[in-house]
Amino acid sequence: MAASSVVKKIKEQASLVEKSAAAGDKPSLRFPVRSLANVRYDATRGHFTMKTARKERTLTVGTVKAFAQTLKMMALSKQLVDANDIATKREAYYVSKNWGEARFLEQPESDTVMDDVEALFGVNREQLGFIPEEKGGEVAGALVVIDRDPASGRQLRIDCTKFGSGAYSIPNSVEHLGFETKATFILAIETAGMFQRLVKHGYWQTARCILVSMGGVPTRACRRFIRRLADEKGLPVYVFVDGDPYGISNIYRTLKVGSGNAAHLNEYFCVPQARFLGITPQDIIDYELPTHPLKDVDIKRAKDALKNDPFVQHYKAWQKAITQMIGMGVRAEQQALAKHGLNYVIDEYLPRKLAHTEKFLP
Amino acid sequence: MAASSVVKKIKEQASLVEKSAAAGDKPSLRFPVRSLANVRYDATRGHFTMKTARKERTLTVGTVKAFAQTLKMMALSKQLVDANDIATKREAYYVSKNWGEARFLEQPESDTVMDDVEALFGVNREQLGFIPEEKGGEVAGALVVIDRDPASGRQLRIDCTKFGSGAYSIPNSVEHLGFETKATFILAIETAGMFQRLVKHGYWQTARCILVSMGGVPTRACRRFIRRLADEKGLPVYVFVDGDPYGISNIYRTLKVGSGNAAHLNEYFCVPQARFLGITPQDIIDYELPTHPLKDVDIKRAKDALKNDPFVQHYKAWQKAITQMIGMGVRAEQQALAKHGLNYVIDEYLPRKLAHTEKFLP
Repeated sequence: MAASSVVKKIKEQASLVEKSAAAGDKPSLRFPVRSLANVRYDATRGHFTMKTARKERTLTVGTVKAFAQTLKMMALSKQLVDANDIATKREAYYVSKNWGEARFLEQPESDTVMDDVEALFGVNREQLGFIPEEKGGEVAGALVVIDRDPASGRQLRIDCTKFGSGAYSIPNSVEHLGFETKATFILAIETAGMFQRLVKHGYWQTARCILVSMGGVPTRACRRFIRRLADEKGLPVYVFVDGDPYGISNIYRTLKVGSGNAAHLNEYFCVPQARFLGITPQDIIDYELPTHPLKDVDIKRAKDALKNDPFVQHYKAWQKAITQMIGMGVRAEQQALAKHGLNYVIDEYLPRKLAHTEKFLP
Repeated sequence: MAASSVVKKIKEQASLVEKSAAAGDKPSLRFPVRSLANVRYDATRGHFTMKTARKERTLTVGTVKAFAQTLKMMALSKQLVDANDIATKREAYYVSKNWGEARFLEQPESDTVMDDVEALFGVNREQLGFIPEEKGGEVAGALVVIDRDPASGRQLRIDCTKFGSGAYSIPNSVEHLGFETKATFILAIETAGMFQRLVKHGYWQTARCILVSMGGVPTRACRRFIRRLADEKGLPVYVFVDGDPYGISNIYRTLKVGSGNAAHLNEYFCVPQARFLGITPQDIIDYELPTHPLKDVDIKRAKDALKNDPFVQHYKAWQKAITQMIGMGVRAEQQALAKHGLNYVIDEYLPRKLAHTEKFLP
């Protein structure tokens, strides 16, 4: 959504409140309910979506503080978007220290109001000028990122083939970026070590791909970056993570369909075109990988996924793979391929897997 | 140290072992003892240095496995350096799975042997071809990094003014990088959020500096990057962290003088030219910052620093500052400056502080 539309939406809501108050009525705001109970799995769109339940916040003696805080947060957002500025969640909390009685006492309070405002306008936080605290996500390979110089506004072309052993670090907000690429797929990688190996050996050149290092569970900015890039350039996304329940449920599942407790955001942050390259439980057998026994927490996570995860419940192939892993009782890391030689992953594993992308887990 | 010197050193050690074995003697290797007891604070060099205690590993029935593992690790290092390749600690562990009886059962075993080899040759792990798992450290501002294309070997000039809202991500190993800059100082920043704000507003342009985001406690690569850049270009390093015992002891102290349990590395990874810009306890008063009460763990950390940290014990100014913080009973984050407006940090705080660098804590 363009900045002007966001400002327009904020103004519309604010003037409804103003008119209502001027008419002597109690102004109110209606927010979507943000909880798992108000979520369904949309197989067509490929992510969790919100159902229609709404909560109403009406101005009364009891709600006056929360009501004021919501309006102040909307005003801060308008100010940020107007000025093309940004604020982290933490900064927004500190800004409120000058809101007199409406100031927040703890950051979780301001985060909740920010989430409400985000859901109210049906946009993501970054579009309201609020950026996440954490960074994460490095990129190397056949990609030119189009950005602009923050000071002069001049267009910048950032060529991700030209960073040597380094990489392009994804900014906290990626809404304004453009892309040019001749790559044929995006390879999203769990560990920085594996990413560095593929960069060191110019793997993206031979494989004609874009390498993205997620560094564990990908940040919002990293997920949004992959999503926008994949959408705009029509690229498939292959995900290369450890062969364990964490890699499957926490990293891959979150990247692909989003998470349950932030369903109003999945529309923007999920990557429905993602497919699971490996490490699969079957890879552990086929490539004779060194393993570690599943820990109790791994087994619990795997069983939870089978029992409660709408995504896993939708795909027989995932139920089979997770059941196989529980049966084997072991997990394997992506770096375990080094047993066959440090560059076995480049010379053998990835080419063999990529020759049969149709076999990738969904 | 050049790659050829590393290989030469490895060969020398190996041939001593070989000659000794050929002569029917028991071969042995002598390692520096890596512990706090074998460390002193060198005020001139500005970091912890190793004393002379050594441990000897002689080949006997009881030590045969550890001895073989050390030699195999040396051989792996030679192979890496010869091939201009790299291995993470994790990969090195997995490579050992093909060493038959000499294979490691758990990664801590292989890490220890790697640390021994590192200390044995008096070089850092990166020079032996071993790279850390974790990444970390983003750079923006008046700096050109000289790297080479991994595939073609062609020189690359990476202009850190040209990343827009993004940044240059520091690679895991930085030994080979060159630098060109007209900046007058390096500003090392604790949080990604603050870094993003300074990037967004082109702060490095007006202040003529290089911005480095540490993302909490800086990684080895990030520390080494700052050190090499500061050394080669004669730049002062100003450190901007949260005003709490963690920011002082864990982030700033580690960056500046290194850590106790890896004293054989401090020579490479410390940044003796670092000075503490803020947030100081006095800043909390002078800038009327919103605070949080010190937690028990904060108080413990602060008292430990006063009692046990040779660096703090060396500087009266630090003892005074830490004592002042304990007395105030509060801490403040760098983002607390947002209370006075989101860009107060740029318009007021940093210029005022930088006008008196001579007052920075040592």
